Amino acid sequence: MDTLHGMKRTHYCGQLSEANIGQTVTVMGWVDVYRNLGSLIFVDLRDRYGIIQLSFDTDIDSEIFEKAATLRNEFVVAASGEVVKRSAPNPKLPTGTIEIKVSELRILSKAETPPFEIKAETDVKDELRLKYRYLDLRRSPMQKNIEMRHKIAKIARDFYDENGFLEIETPMLTKSTPEGARDYLVPSRVHHGKFYALPQSPQQYKQLLMLAGMDRYFQIVKCFRDEDLRADRQPEFTQIDLEMSFVEIDDVISINEQMIARVFKEALGIEVQTPFLRMPYQEAMERFGSDKPDTRFGLELVNISELVKDCGFGVFSGAIANGGSVRAINVKGGADKLSRKELDSLGEFVKTYRAKGLAWMVREEAGVRSPIAKFFKEEELETIFKKTQAEAGDTLLFVADQDNVVFDALGALRCEVARRLDLIDKNKFNLLWVTEFPLLEYSEEEDRYVAKHHPFTAPMDEDLALLDTEPGKVRAKAYDIILNGCELGGGSIRIFNSELQEKMFEVLGFTKEEAWERFGHLMEAFKYGTPPHGGMAYGLDRFVMLLCGADSIREVIAFPKVQNASDLMMNAPDVVDDKQLKELGIAISRESKE
Amino acid sequence: MDTLHGMKRTHYCGQLSEANIGQTVTVMGWVDVYRNLGSLIFVDLRDRYGIIQLSFDTDIDSEIFEKAATLRNEFVVAASGEVVKRSAPNPKLPTGTIEIKVSELRILSKAETPPFEIKAETDVKDELRLKYRYLDLRRSPMQKNIEMRHKIAKIARDFYDENGFLEIETPMLTKSTPEGARDYLVPSRVHHGKFYALPQSPQQYKQLLMLAGMDRYFQIVKCFRDEDLRADRQPEFTQIDLEMSFVEIDDVISINEQMIARVFKEALGIEVQTPFLRMPYQEAMERFGSDKPDTRFGLELVNISELVKDCGFGVFSGAIANGGSVRAINVKGGADKLSRKELDSLGEFVKTYRAKGLAWMVREEAGVRSPIAKFFKEEELETIFKKTQAEAGDTLLFVADQDNVVFDALGALRCEVARRLDLIDKNKFNLLWVTEFPLLEYSEEEDRYVAKHHPFTAPMDEDLALLDTEPGKVRAKAYDIILNGCELGGGSIRIFNSELQEKMFEVLGFTKEEAWERFGHLMEAFKYGTPPHGGMAYGLDRFVMLLCGADSIREVIAFPKVQNASDLMMNAPDVVDDKQLKELGIAISRESKE
Repeated sequence: MDTLHGMKRTHYCGQLSEANIGQTVTVMGWVDVYRNLGSLIFVDLRDRYGIIQLSFDTDIDSEIFEKAATLRNEFVVAASGEVVKRSAPNPKLPTGTIEIKVSELRILSKAETPPFEIKAETDVKDELRLKYRYLDLRRSPMQKNIEMRHKIAKIARDFYDENGFLEIETPMLTKSTPEGARDYLVPSRVHHGKFYALPQSPQQYKQLLMLAGMDRYFQIVKCFRDEDLRADRQPEFTQIDLEMSFVEIDDVISINEQMIARVFKEALGIEVQTPFLRMPYQEAMERFGSDKPDTRFGLELVNISELVKDCGFGVFSGAIANGGSVRAINVKGGADKLSRKELDSLGEFVKTYRAKGLAWMVREEAGVRSPIAKFFKEEELETIFKKTQAEAGDTLLFVADQDNVVFDALGALRCEVARRLDLIDKNKFNLLWVTEFPLLEYSEEEDRYVAKHHPFTAPMDEDLALLDTEPGKVRAKAYDIILNGCELGGGSIRIFNSELQEKMFEVLGFTKEEAWERFGHLMEAFKYGTPPHGGMAYGLDRFVMLLCGADSIREVIAFPKVQNASDLMMNAPDVVDDKQLKELGIAISRESKE
Repeated sequence: MDTLHGMKRTHYCGQLSEANIGQTVTVMGWVDVYRNLGSLIFVDLRDRYGIIQLSFDTDIDSEIFEKAATLRNEFVVAASGEVVKRSAPNPKLPTGTIEIKVSELRILSKAETPPFEIKAETDVKDELRLKYRYLDLRRSPMQKNIEMRHKIAKIARDFYDENGFLEIETPMLTKSTPEGARDYLVPSRVHHGKFYALPQSPQQYKQLLMLAGMDRYFQIVKCFRDEDLRADRQPEFTQIDLEMSFVEIDDVISINEQMIARVFKEALGIEVQTPFLRMPYQEAMERFGSDKPDTRFGLELVNISELVKDCGFGVFSGAIANGGSVRAINVKGGADKLSRKELDSLGEFVKTYRAKGLAWMVREEAGVRSPIAKFFKEEELETIFKKTQAEAGDTLLFVADQDNVVFDALGALRCEVARRLDLIDKNKFNLLWVTEFPLLEYSEEEDRYVAKHHPFTAPMDEDLALLDTEPGKVRAKAYDIILNGCELGGGSIRIFNSELQEKMFEVLGFTKEEAWERFGHLMEAFKYGTPPHGGMAYGLDRFVMLLCGADSIREVIAFPKVQNASDLMMNAPDVVDDKQLKELGIAISRESKE
């Protein structure tokens, strides 16, 4: 094999242009395409910046030509030569009008045939891509995604730095917190029987940094959750995490709008308007059936409970009598767009959201087409059409149930219908804040209130009195930032005095002793002078995914894990030596060995 | 307690100046000093940016005055008022010529008396400082250190970004590697009996990123080592980690010199000259007895073996006969500076480095004063004085033993003597590269060669042939960057083909099967086209410590752990629920419970 010795790269492949014609340059990279025409060889050489054609002519230098003839895809080479104009330009390549007539060629590394072809578009199975991730990452869309991730993190960092935030590293080996998701544990060798936990978020540390007078903190940081991986989750994920002292909701929102606008502008060249829309939680649920409303399209929910509470259709009137509601969405022109078969399939769709079924009506020029039409009086239909603004040719879709089921089902349905009918403008980036979240939600499972965000979130001042009387009605100083129906991040103003924090734990059903045992270090800290503070955290993986237009966060993580939390390339997790376990003072349980 | 509601901070305390006189401003912070003079109250208010004096006059507003009279140290307040010139300036404060006549005061949080006083200089015990780290971090030297850390990381990131490096996150949940220090393990809940390991470094991932065509990678990243904490180590520490493709040693060194120069300039305002000195390992050992030479002072080692191999002093001649050496350092003017008692104590000092003792000679105007003088002939003494450039009044210190002991002992001794005699200019920042490290060192314990850096380090081309014949003599393409006798970082050019990598494992005593079992994923990856690559890693904690002039890395880490690897503030590690262990399929071993 040749060595690099003394040879210096002068240009990246993708950076050459007609301005370099006549110059002697040196490039290095991978053979992307190899064509041998007998007396001419053409090689597309690839690096992170793009592709340049190398040409070899047997009549000019037969020795180099013969060396070039041994090249194959993915060989790594260094080549020097003059940049010349191409006789047959390739309009598909940015460098397609030039090529390098190679006068020195070194083969730095040969390559066996890779397990799949390295090309932009691929239908190779995810398992194979991940096992050979280092080959998969050679594909240009993956390179672009990784570059975009770097760029977004850099822009965010620059922004926070310019605005007086200090990036402060918080520990990875910390303490298990009983509230929240499952922790990853790390056995301690020095303290047998004791464990560290990997952090689910730096929440308590960042609050302590505010108590420490750091004023503004941020960190781009790995966090961990040992959950059964639903859909698009990873056991380790990255947060942009921040906290500010002496702030109210508007301060946190305003500075983060500037950050987001900066990312859009510098990463995508898109100007987004600030301030963003703010929508209270209740409104988001009523109109979109979701606290993550996708506002790129209509299909808003309409509450027709008042109109149908006494109607002859028992499913509707019964739901209302049981304390639920009946809501509809109006699919404009649905008569032509949604076949009977399609409507049946949407009916199946809503059942996955616990709805018992989907009722529908098509308004026609005269009258209505619907399996349930017969249960309604003429004037009832008229009021429904009026309220839902249904015109001839429109299809109404109804769900009747408890509010939470109706919201879930119709919230998902409107997105599904929009996808099927292609109502979503992919070039739109709709950003909005959802605010005034409930502080607590009742957990049937635990038979107590649990914190909707986390137990450090402050209640709204105007709702403080309700904490004793109607805790479920207390709104929080919490906010989520939503992009196209996905949660980019969220945060809150925090409780900053021990009395209110104790009260909060009381509402959550902890005794004073339990609360102090679990969160004592934070409540103790509150006693020594605590500034009002608040902050938020973004899921960087999803943020990047949305801005890259990728389908999964796995497409924007260099080395992701699969559904069962394993790393297919490294083969992790794996068995370890008994000696290691012995040192840690732990053993694998008999049950789990069997 | 008052709320912040509607009140906006207009300035940071430390940012006010005479330019603000006449303006009404709002500041927020902690009461640093409180003085009540009866009809006047003065409060020094502190935030991250500094201190400003608030003044309250009972004759002007008795209501606010009375509120101010309830203030105590560490209370958190917001105050508005006019900036005025002070009648009695405080020259110690940057804002000492002005104060705020407070017209609105809100007490946002009261404070109990903290367990120690919040002041710059402290002699509070480390344990107490760490238990209440959030209070300790309020002290101005800690705030400065944390700011400096942020700044250094930011400068490094900006630099690498500008030079085409992509910051790419590598996994924290990865695979245990049997070579190297002890891993922290993370039991897998999904795969009972299997474990992740926290990374000791992203070494293999970053090499795979080079195979993936990422060209230039960096990352500021947490790494983990479960070692018994010597001196100034932490179980989790932060690396500036980088890797480059298509490079030789000079390329890596050159770009990193630029980075370091940038950090010195932007963080400290100091211009360092590039290129830095490069010193081969062998020279560093011969002259300084260390591969981390502190070149801020002399006291270099002088090899006098040739002169004394046949002398009458058995300790010297015997050491040489046994294959060792005799070396000296010359303490200029030592006759006046090093008392007999001091010399005895230095004798004890070198014993901690396994030397059997320290011999010494004081050259006098006429003759020599030394317990071993009698063993030497006149002309032997003369040649020794000549070789060591000893003049009248100088003291020579000798160690005779195997080379490694002589180097260790005298290398440490010259630093100790320099400290005691105050020979070190604290304003000097001496940077140099140590190069041409041995590739391997022989481990008596394991009775085989082990890699001096790691098994992926490339041998020097000119020494390749020695791999079979004299592996101990093979030099590596490795380099360390040394600042004032401390290793800031180090790295190497890597092996990039499977044959040489296999050969390396063979020399390290692995069978082909073992090597493939343990490092197969990397050697397999090498088969698909690998660019020549190399890189390095810096220990950020130590880098920041040295630039802050701090004594310990704990002073530049927000939440460090103590010697026994526990977090005194959070009380981690800690016991966990049996339910958690059951889910993980592990149990605490009986032996360790007892």
